[in-house]
Amino acid sequence: MIPTRNVNIIFRRKMIGDVIKIPIRLSTSFQRSVCPKEPTKPSVHLPFPGPKSQELFKELNQIQQAESVQLFADYDKSIGNYLVDVDGNVLLDLYTQISSLPLGYNHPKLLKIFSDDHKIRTLINRPALGVYPGEDYPRMLKNVLLKVAPPQMSNVVTMMCGACSNENAMKHMFISYQRKIRGNDTDYTETEMKTSITNLPPGCPELSILSFYESFHGRTLGALSVTHSKAIHKLDFPAFDWPIAHFPKYKYPLNENMCENDKEDDRCLAEVEELIEKYRKKGKPVAGIIVEPIQAEGGDNEASPIFFQKLQLIAKQNSASLLIDEVQTGCGVTGKMWCHEYFNLPTPPDLVTFSKKMQVGGYYHTAEMKPSLSYRIFNTWMGDPGKLLILEEVLNVMQQEKLIENVNKVGKKLMNELFHLQYEFPSVINSVRGRGTFLAFNAADSKMRQKLILKLQELGINIGVCGERSIRLRPALTFQERQASMFLDALRGAITLVLA
Amino acid sequence: MIPTRNVNIIFRRKMIGDVIKIPIRLSTSFQRSVCPKEPTKPSVHLPFPGPKSQELFKELNQIQQAESVQLFADYDKSIGNYLVDVDGNVLLDLYTQISSLPLGYNHPKLLKIFSDDHKIRTLINRPALGVYPGEDYPRMLKNVLLKVAPPQMSNVVTMMCGACSNENAMKHMFISYQRKIRGNDTDYTETEMKTSITNLPPGCPELSILSFYESFHGRTLGALSVTHSKAIHKLDFPAFDWPIAHFPKYKYPLNENMCENDKEDDRCLAEVEELIEKYRKKGKPVAGIIVEPIQAEGGDNEASPIFFQKLQLIAKQNSASLLIDEVQTGCGVTGKMWCHEYFNLPTPPDLVTFSKKMQVGGYYHTAEMKPSLSYRIFNTWMGDPGKLLILEEVLNVMQQEKLIENVNKVGKKLMNELFHLQYEFPSVINSVRGRGTFLAFNAADSKMRQKLILKLQELGINIGVCGERSIRLRPALTFQERQASMFLDALRGAITLVLA
Repeated sequence: MIPTRNVNIIFRRKMIGDVIKIPIRLSTSFQRSVCPKEPTKPSVHLPFPGPKSQELFKELNQIQQAESVQLFADYDKSIGNYLVDVDGNVLLDLYTQISSLPLGYNHPKLLKIFSDDHKIRTLINRPALGVYPGEDYPRMLKNVLLKVAPPQMSNVVTMMCGACSNENAMKHMFISYQRKIRGNDTDYTETEMKTSITNLPPGCPELSILSFYESFHGRTLGALSVTHSKAIHKLDFPAFDWPIAHFPKYKYPLNENMCENDKEDDRCLAEVEELIEKYRKKGKPVAGIIVEPIQAEGGDNEASPIFFQKLQLIAKQNSASLLIDEVQTGCGVTGKMWCHEYFNLPTPPDLVTFSKKMQVGGYYHTAEMKPSLSYRIFNTWMGDPGKLLILEEVLNVMQQEKLIENVNKVGKKLMNELFHLQYEFPSVINSVRGRGTFLAFNAADSKMRQKLILKLQELGINIGVCGERSIRLRPALTFQERQASMFLDALRGAITLVLA
Repeated sequence: MIPTRNVNIIFRRKMIGDVIKIPIRLSTSFQRSVCPKEPTKPSVHLPFPGPKSQELFKELNQIQQAESVQLFADYDKSIGNYLVDVDGNVLLDLYTQISSLPLGYNHPKLLKIFSDDHKIRTLINRPALGVYPGEDYPRMLKNVLLKVAPPQMSNVVTMMCGACSNENAMKHMFISYQRKIRGNDTDYTETEMKTSITNLPPGCPELSILSFYESFHGRTLGALSVTHSKAIHKLDFPAFDWPIAHFPKYKYPLNENMCENDKEDDRCLAEVEELIEKYRKKGKPVAGIIVEPIQAEGGDNEASPIFFQKLQLIAKQNSASLLIDEVQTGCGVTGKMWCHEYFNLPTPPDLVTFSKKMQVGGYYHTAEMKPSLSYRIFNTWMGDPGKLLILEEVLNVMQQEKLIENVNKVGKKLMNELFHLQYEFPSVINSVRGRGTFLAFNAADSKMRQKLILKLQELGINIGVCGERSIRLRPALTFQERQASMFLDALRGAITLVLA
């Protein structure tokens, strides 16, 4: 038996011969071979995925396990908020490459980045940044990454993806913890040095990282040891015995369940304290806590600002660092550059990781966290200046087009209308929640969710799922009110079809 | 006390006020502001690093721990085999961004890649390849990565870097091992699914990976658990208790020590078998073996084809997979596309990882290793099509310019002359070894190595170190005989200076 997976059954569904009626035809505005403007609406031919995707799937599946593939895209034709596939289907995209595409497809400003000779050279002369950075690297860090740094975070390290950002940020917490114990991070004993080579304490001490149930922090073995969202991610892989606390599970709507939700915060925080004590006694002290501001993959689970304030306090009281994983919540999508800015923490978190929409992975950290020695946090590339060039332009566009304001405006509209829908159709959807356009709701159960997702797909909406029965909205920052209306109409349509 | 580190003491050296005489001036051919051709020779102004690098270092070191930085490069001016820095120093580069730059700097063919509109769109519309690959993705895998696949390896998975390639290849081995035990990798029990969420067996079984002393496989926590080259990589970080065997330590020259080296193979292989048995009894069975064809970071330690043939046999006899890590040895640098092709293995290894010169990370695997379910090996991006475009052109150039032939020709010359030097100066260097231009020699001790490296630097040679006292050659595939002569002259010069 295998757990509920994301909607990766599409090709199998086709194979067993489902036939679905065609709901919408290609809009005429899109039938030109070149499409500089967004189409006016989505359009899907059935069967979906179409014959070309089916053919390419067979080809790819001979080269690698490819059953997670939903369609083959035409990235030359995809435009703005619309993902166009090889069969000419045009999907309004509320999933945006697992939430990693900040400005939608083929933004005209991004298309121009690499018309500059210096930038082409930056792409093809990829340096080992830890040893031979280019002349403009400090400036790029300052003008790009530090320009949007979380308040009072002055240091930044670049990486390649979310998982390795979390892996290295955890290493950073171990260094910091041992420095507090030892009094420094330079004078290692001969015994420490010898045992470290053989994976044994004291060189490789039995420290732990506290994480939360339903968390997702990546798929490498360290990141996976703090990930607890789905069995399919973890089965067969050895993991560290590290403490796992419950993350608050709120009752919705929030304003009708405040008292109960406060108690839920306290229950979870008490467990955090108990686990820290338990693992101290067990000889595996907690060096750091890793937490998402909103648990994304695990079901878009929120926690209150007070929860995070108290969590930070507990970390401090126990000499543990606090790492906030903003890989999915960062880059403006919640209506602030970083979601944890909503929490009004009295001092900044010790580390904040990023990736996805930020193009490059990495993490911010406070000045106090800086290791004394080089080569502690290190790898061949240490990020990628080519990705920083894209991020630079993404941030320019975000400023010029006031995209964070846009997220707040469109998010408010989406939230309001989703609230109405949940009151109108309580047997189908509930628990509308989120910030900015980083929104989600629950289907009544996982079967209902699957029906909704398939109906939405027929109506030309590409959207993601998370947790056991949640549907998550992850549109680009450029998602407009008119597209929000289109999505809401489609959702209403899908609900009606499901109830019919 | 801190272990011997790479040559990251340069800035500190400057700070304590060393003064070094200027050996060579900028060659006139290079003083033009645009430099379409390689300079005729290297040139270094002292003090090195120069004032501009010093200034930029201060700036960068305020943003991140930057003491591993050796210089700031000018990647617009760097050309071919020459790395040019911001102070106008021109270094003949035998380290090539920690062995990650296949064609040197600003190869004219690579400069042209992104003049194509489709390719620019591929860069800025970065897909989640596991869900929405582009139309040309199967073709790219076939025409680029599979075109140079190791013999009989038909499957390939792309990743981002060497560490995450090894992490995921190890996960692949765990899946395969459990499949053999369970009979399938689809029917997980409820208990397995529940316990996997909490990091506990049977869902997260206590399996292990066998690795070798002096190995280097990356810096994330899983990859670090199979890495044993330097304490500075591992101190303070928890690690899995997994078996570590000794890798052969040969006596040089090989043809004078065959009998002893054969015994060394047998000693190490016997230890592998003992450790597999020991960890089976300990309840942590070995699911796979990870090994470099030549241990690079750990000291350019070689092992014989027979060692690898027997190692593969032991793996098979114990239901363990064999993963050959070609992150540093791959892409033609040893004189074959993949170094393990020298080993004449009767059947292909189960997995072969790559990254660095290949631009994109990933691994080849045999058809039998393919997991039955999707989402087992998965992450947001699953590689980067933009990097595949660069690799495509790299492989074209390698074919057009017959670069593997070039590597063999230049490697032979280097090897011959290094042999002469070691016989001429046995008190300074010894143990010349390697394949293709992937060569190394030992200095008499680590102090002697440090002196040689600094002298070589003054003479305009950028070169790397590995192990305790080795110097490693890692030129680009385009490194020519005339540059080899220049390096050999400089090395002779450095040895003479050190002996003076």
